[in-house]
Amino acid sequence: MPPRTHFVIVGAKSSASPDFRLDDLPGTSGRLDVLLRCVRAALLVSHGVRREVAVYLVLLGGPAAPRAVRVTGAEARFLRPDERSLATLVKKSLAAPRTGAGFVTVRPGVAVADGGLDVVLDDLGDAALWLLDEGGDDLRDVALGSDPAAFVLGDHTGLDATARARLDARGARRVRVGPVSVHADDVVAIVTNELDRRAG
Amino acid sequence: MPPRTHFVIVGAKSSASPDFRLDDLPGTSGRLDVLLRCVRAALLVSHGVRREVAVYLVLLGGPAAPRAVRVTGAEARFLRPDERSLATLVKKSLAAPRTGAGFVTVRPGVAVADGGLDVVLDDLGDAALWLLDEGGDDLRDVALGSDPAAFVLGDHTGLDATARARLDARGARRVRVGPVSVHADDVVAIVTNELDRRAG
Repeated sequence: MPPRTHFVIVGAKSSASPDFRLDDLPGTSGRLDVLLRCVRAALLVSHGVRREVAVYLVLLGGPAAPRAVRVTGAEARFLRPDERSLATLVKKSLAAPRTGAGFVTVRPGVAVADGGLDVVLDDLGDAALWLLDEGGDDLRDVALGSDPAAFVLGDHTGLDATARARLDARGARRVRVGPVSVHADDVVAIVTNELDRRAG
Repeated sequence: MPPRTHFVIVGAKSSASPDFRLDDLPGTSGRLDVLLRCVRAALLVSHGVRREVAVYLVLLGGPAAPRAVRVTGAEARFLRPDERSLATLVKKSLAAPRTGAGFVTVRPGVAVADGGLDVVLDDLGDAALWLLDEGGDDLRDVALGSDPAAFVLGDHTGLDATARARLDARGARRVRVGPVSVHADDVVAIVTNELDRRAG
């Protein structure tokens, strides 16, 4: 069963190569730590994995950029919630050679692609696109529909104008989670809670 | 100005001493990593700190237990969001000698007490107590009132019967955040979002 919910987190300077240190993620990985926390929030629940969810990390930092990592809940194994474990997973995945192609599975549930936001948007197919934006409509008020949905958000620096233009061109709608500008992983948790409530 | 919102996270086996390894938090700290992620979710927003919030970590693991750590948003400095930085902060704070007393400030905005949930509940004064519980009322439906509020939650193992009884004796009301059992830091993020919406 393909994922019903996708989260796409764009790391403006996040390392697209494995050349970062596990003991200083914020200082050496272009703030990959921000993205890793989103992986946890999107995929892990108490004592389990959300099998209906996939997460994309768009890595735009360093000489190997752009690359993207996709983690699919239904297939990933041994996902652990702590940052260091998730960093180790991404580091090993990024050690796979560049292929010049779309997503290539490098370990169960984890695939890597050469390319940035565009290769991710292509991979999402006809999922309804939502851009997390403080000027958007309140999440609680929007009709989410029955199609698969993809929620796109930036890291601590936000999404740049180029990314916004690409999302606009694909018909993304803008949505906000609340009145305060919160961390990306909190955005993921809040969106997920709203989806849980609608589903259940 | 005293905090308006408190989060209390009880770590059933979380280390009350600094004898854990920063490069293996999940394996050596009694899952202190779970509690550290709650500190981030409670206190940090995009490019800032929630000055109206305080977080208590109740550490019930190891020979130095019970101890409690309080982090106060209005006074804490240099709080960083990544687990390793937060673990370093707690590790240094726990290196302070046991005093046998209530909360003693060990660095700006960080205080340590000898004692467990009871010393925390005493410190909370007349804050309205809320126990996060999957059988509770829906957070969106409850009237939170104008008094300071304290939200108490367990780690990945939940709160034990003794803790629940103590909270019941102090009039804690039970509340849930949604239909799915999520990680403690996601609970904090969802509660915080509801508070943000009510405030603003």
